[in-house]
Formats: sequence, C-alpha cells, structure tokens
Amino acid sequence: MPQQSPLDLPEGDPFGPHNLPYGVFTTADAPEHRRIGVRYGDHVLDTAAVAAMLGSPHTDLLSQPLLNPLMAAGRPVWDAVRAEVRGWLTDPAYQTTVEPMLVPLAEVTLHLPFEVADYVDFYASEHHASNVGRMFRPQDEPLLPNWKHLPIGYHGRAGTVVVSGTPVVRPLGQRLPAGADTPVFGPTQRLDIEAEVGFVVGTPTAPGERVPLTSFRDHVFGVTLVNDWSARDLQSWEYRPLGPFLAKSFATSVSAWVTPLAAFDAARTAPPARDLPLLDYLDDSATEPDGLDIRIEVALNGHPVSYPPFATMYWTAAQQLAHMTVNGATLRTGDLYASGTVSGPEREQRGCLLELTWSGRDPLELPDGTRTFLLDGDEVTLTAWAPGPDGSRIGLGEVTGRIAAATD
Amino acid sequence: MPQQSPLDLPEGDPFGPHNLPYGVFTTADAPEHRRIGVRYGDHVLDTAAVAAMLGSPHTDLLSQPLLNPLMAAGRPVWDAVRAEVRGWLTDPAYQTTVEPMLVPLAEVTLHLPFEVADYVDFYASEHHASNVGRMFRPQDEPLLPNWKHLPIGYHGRAGTVVVSGTPVVRPLGQRLPAGADTPVFGPTQRLDIEAEVGFVVGTPTAPGERVPLTSFRDHVFGVTLVNDWSARDLQSWEYRPLGPFLAKSFATSVSAWVTPLAAFDAARTAPPARDLPLLDYLDDSATEPDGLDIRIEVALNGHPVSYPPFATMYWTAAQQLAHMTVNGATLRTGDLYASGTVSGPEREQRGCLLELTWSGRDPLELPDGTRTFLLDGDEVTLTAWAPGPDGSRIGLGEVTGRIAAATD
Repeated sequence: MPQQSPLDLPEGDPFGPHNLPYGVFTTADAPEHRRIGVRYGDHVLDTAAVAAMLGSPHTDLLSQPLLNPLMAAGRPVWDAVRAEVRGWLTDPAYQTTVEPMLVPLAEVTLHLPFEVADYVDFYASEHHASNVGRMFRPQDEPLLPNWKHLPIGYHGRAGTVVVSGTPVVRPLGQRLPAGADTPVFGPTQRLDIEAEVGFVVGTPTAPGERVPLTSFRDHVFGVTLVNDWSARDLQSWEYRPLGPFLAKSFATSVSAWVTPLAAFDAARTAPPARDLPLLDYLDDSATEPDGLDIRIEVALNGHPVSYPPFATMYWTAAQQLAHMTVNGATLRTGDLYASGTVSGPEREQRGCLLELTWSGRDPLELPDGTRTFLLDGDEVTLTAWAPGPDGSRIGLGEVTGRIAAATD
Repeated sequence: MPQQSPLDLPEGDPFGPHNLPYGVFTTADAPEHRRIGVRYGDHVLDTAAVAAMLGSPHTDLLSQPLLNPLMAAGRPVWDAVRAEVRGWLTDPAYQTTVEPMLVPLAEVTLHLPFEVADYVDFYASEHHASNVGRMFRPQDEPLLPNWKHLPIGYHGRAGTVVVSGTPVVRPLGQRLPAGADTPVFGPTQRLDIEAEVGFVVGTPTAPGERVPLTSFRDHVFGVTLVNDWSARDLQSWEYRPLGPFLAKSFATSVSAWVTPLAAFDAARTAPPARDLPLLDYLDDSATEPDGLDIRIEVALNGHPVSYPPFATMYWTAAQQLAHMTVNGATLRTGDLYASGTVSGPEREQRGCLLELTWSGRDPLELPDGTRTFLLDGDEVTLTAWAPGPDGSRIGLGEVTGRIAAATD
C-alpha cells in the first residue's frame, strides 16, 4: 500500500479544509524560530515557508512569531489569507510544493499563539450563574436582578494566560474554614476548572468607538477553547465586594489553535429566547443569530465527565463585545474575552466541578477513584467541535493541563 | 540681572535633585522622536542626548521610546542610572554639557511613559471602604469580614490607561433609576474621580515566585499618581457579583512622571495599627515600615476640594505586592497596581466625590457653583508631594483630565 499523502485526510477529519486554525510552532532543529502554522489533519503547514516559496503577498504577515500582526490586518486580509491557504491545501497544482511543508504534529512544539492585551471573562450561562448563586448566596434569588439586562463580566490577568499543556501549579492563598471567623493559609483545597470558549480581537477600535452587534465579525479574528482555572475556597473568601482576584489570576489556559470566526458560519444558531426585553445596543431579536453550536467535552484523566453545550449560552459573543465597548473603552489587537463557564441545563452538561459535584456534596465516580475537586497529578482536557459546511466538523484545539503540587 | 541657569532651582523646588522622575517626551521639531526625560524643576533633561554625549553605559536604555527596558533592568541598574543623572545635574563639571539639554516643560509633549502590562486596583483605605460600604450596603456592617485579613483588589483594563491631560469622554451605560426595576441607557449621571497612588513594576518574577514584603523594593520601579475615573450609577448596577467592569474601564489617568521608589526613603512611615493579626506573608509588624507619607491635593476647576493623606492607608504597597503574587501569579515589567481611593478620616480628606458629597446628598459649594458629580467641561487635577531628605519635598507629577460630553 503506498504511503498516503498528508493532504489526503480521512473522511470527517475535524481539521479539514473548512477549519484551518492558526497556531505558532517551532521544530526541534530550530527551537528559537517561532512561526505561524495552520493545522491540517494531524500535520502543521509551515505557512511562512510556503508563502515565501510561492511569493505570496502575505509572506510577511505569515512569517511573524505571533499572530498579532495578522490579527491586526483586518477582516479583508483574514479572508484573503484563509482563501489562499485553503487553495494551497486543496488545489492539486500546489501539491508538490505544499506536501514537504506539512510537519507532523508530533514533531512540533506549540506556543501561545498571540500576545494577550486585556483579558475579560464573562458569565454568560444562565445555568452556571444560577447554580453558583444557589451555592454561594443560598439566601437570595439564584440570579441577581442585573443578570438578564447585561452580560456580567470582569477583567482577569492577561499575564498568566498560558498555552495548552502548561502545568498548573496549585495556588496558595487564604480560605475561611467552615464555621471559622479567621482565615487560614495554604494550598487551595478546592481547585476547579471552568470550560469556556474564548474570542480573540483582531481589529482594534478608536477611542470612543462602539462595536454594534452587526460589526462583531469585523473585530473578532477567531475562537479558542479556554480553561479558566479557579480556586473556589480562595474565591468565596475574597470575592466581596470587588469580584474574583487571586482565585483566578494564577493561570488561564487557552488552546494552541485559534480557529477563524469564519469557520463557524454553519454553526450559527439562535440563542435562547430572551425573558426580558433588551436595551437597543444588546437587542439581537432582529439580527442574524450569533449563538454558536459548539459542543465541548471535559475529560478528567481521560474520562469524559461533562458535555457543555455552548449553544445554550444566554449572552452571545456579539452582545459581549457590544457591551464591553458601549462605554467607549477601546479594543486592542490581542484582547481576549471568554464566555464564562459553559453549563447546560443537565447535570452532565455542567462546565465546572463546583457544579458537577454540587460544591463537593456529590463526588464524581471515576474509574480511578472519586473526585470532588482536583488532586495533584490530575489532568483535565477540554475538546470541542462545531458543525461545518456539507456535514463536516470544525474541531477546536484542545486545552489540557496537569495539576502540579503547590510549591513552598 | 543675568539669565539664571535652569540648573539653579529655587529653594524647596519639589522637582530637585532628590526627586528626578522619569517621563517620555517629544518636542515640536521631532514629534515622532519619543525619548526618556528626567524632570528637573520646570525643565526636562534630555537624558538620551546627555548619555550619548558623555558616552554613558546606559545610553541605550535611556534612548528608548518607553521606560519598560529601563524598568526591566533591575534595581542595581536603576540605582546606577539615578546616581549618574544626579551627577549630571549637580556636578558643576557637567554644567556646560547638560545646560543646553534642559528643555522647558512648556515646550515638550509628555506621553504615557510605560507600556502597561496588567493593571490591578486595590481598595486599601479603611475610611474609603467603610464609607462606600455604608452607602452601597446600608443594611450590613460597613467593612466586610475579609477586609482586614487581605488587601482586596481586582483587575482593571490596562488598554485604557491614559496619560495626564487626555480628555475623558463621559461614558454611556446602563443604570437603574431609583425605585425602578428596569435599567435605562445613557450618559452616566454620576461621573466621579478616585485619587490614588500607583506602583509600577520593573523586575518581573518567574512563574510561581512569590514576592515577600522585604523584596518589594527589588520589584517596584516607581510611583505615579492615578485618577481612576468611575461611573457610580453604572457601578452600583453592574458590580454584583463579579465586581466593577464598565464603570471603571473607560479611562484611568496616570501622571506623566514616574518617581523612583528610592526617592521616597524619607517618606517611609508606619502604617496604621493593625486591628487583627495578619497571616505571615502579610505580617509587617517586624519589617521596616512601608507606609508612605504622600500628601495629595484634589482640585476641581482649580479649587482644592480635598487633601487625601496616603499615610492613613491600612494596606501598604509592599503588602499588596506580596498578596498579588502569593498564589504564584507572575509579574511582568509594566504591571501597574494602584492603591485604591485614598481617603482619610476627615471629610476634607476624602478622595472621591461619592464620599465628599455622600452620594450626592451634600453638594460641594465651589466658587463656580455647586457640584455633586462631574459636569461636562469640569477639570480635575491631582497633585501630591512627600517629604524628602534634608527638609526637601518630592513632588509627584500631576494627573489632570477634563470631562468631554458623551458622544452618540
């Protein structure tokens, strides 16, 4: 049987010609030479090398060590580069040029693909916000009065956004033991995940410029998977009145691949029905739907524990961007905003252990033992896909991280 | 009477040889040529030009368009550069070289002097936190139970930190009118200031590295004044449960001058007595005092309205840095963290209009009319000084900003 070309993908491969996510990679022979690659099946296309050989007008953008210059170039350039790369991979005329430039995934090291400017985390799942409300504020209504009027969000720490595969060291901090009135200090005992979808801003705004719902696609370059690691005991002690701080700032993992927003056209879907009328700048009742049918799987040490459905999110990424800029705050290339924990209505659709175990009351039974929160050595992997055109699947890059013991 | 040399400062000038703050400036003849200057009296020393003429080993660091490379160079280099610049300005041997390189302040444009990495805002004044608690949560104890156990803080938006003098456009947003249960949209009606002191990180940390109280001076490069503009009506509607977001993200103004931390040695003072014992990593009872006797003045349209005393802050900048890194979160060069509103125990020591007017109940009587919150066209200017060695004063650069009308 002849050696198959890496250009011939198995049917249904989620990293086929409709996907074409961007990453930044190095190879062992040139560990300092970071350059942009596009994933195709189980290979990485060295786009800088192909562009240079073919004299592409985008050679310079594709030869950078980060995606930021390409992201800043704007939507017409994004579309042109995407069409060009797809041509290289699918037009037989390019086969002999392109084939040697496909590097097996196993032979590359993947890096954080873009420099993060500001990082914002939203809170857009009604199921998640309601569950957290029930656990953290049992005396109140689960949803606060503002929740269905605006997408609640806050700023996180951009400097600790790390690429998939980076170990996550268990953080130290203050927690208040049950019944105590004085905190104790030590490694978190309630280390958790949050399965989220992230949106990466390409086109910046001028000061005071607002981004209406209909301009979402002109500003957002692509989509990542995000695991917003959380220390629940630190969080419940510190979060009043200014929100989470050290409980979240130690690490946020993102996938090594940024899938262009254009790859999700077939995944657009109506968000849940709105229970309350929305102010004009958030009102999406008359726009094309901006919900996305992205299906996430959360695996703990290889065992699936949850299937969070992104299509159930109350607030869309377009609404979040409109809200984030309505006060005149500028966007910069590299701004990352995440959806908030994706949780569906069913128990097996919850996107964090806090909800999956109901704050530790209902442990998960796994083949390697029970779990409430994460133990040292545990590895969490998020994967996801969305429907693509013609029955294809669009795979999102995985986000994985293993817990390392706290250090003194 | 002969023309006086700009090297001869009037007695008591707050920008004398004990201060020497750094900024980034351009002149009209070379508006693209940003370079580092040091303020001396009412002049700016073109340090890059002097360094080049004298063959200084620090010429490259001083010829950059931002302070970040100098900030990243570490404390021994900071000390060496500071000593060298002081020598240029005070040793008569350099007078003929240096004098022509002093540009009048009126002839320069000052720029944001460093690239902000992450921006964190604390909440370290007991008086401010108690006053806000009384107004926002009248049914509860003014201070939440965590407040005296840890420095409460949150992440702000780094991309909207602007230099003094940048106009501040009144933000739009959602607010909940009194008695209503549905928000309305429009320009904020409660635009406020927050007078704060900011600390600029120079030396970064390795992942997992914690900064003990005693290493504060190895990581913090310098001090700025900060006005953390706030829209109180947006804030009270949006802030539960994840903290302030759009109410703060539209603009944060910083002084154009970063004063080296070393200039404040004579201003070190004991912080207020601690009412509760602190966990080891925050316990400063046996360390040299890290409170700072910085005296702020807040002026509205030229009329002083408040004198916030930084020495009354419960949490020191050293404690804030220790807390911010205790969970293993890394520091980057350019991280900026601000103290939170500086408010003393007296009414005329309160650092924001929310407190000064008790949420609008007690308007300020000014020569140009009464004020509760800011009107379009109002200009707010913060200035500050601290005691220096030998009876000198260390002036901090001013932070000023004028309110522009909201844009549609």
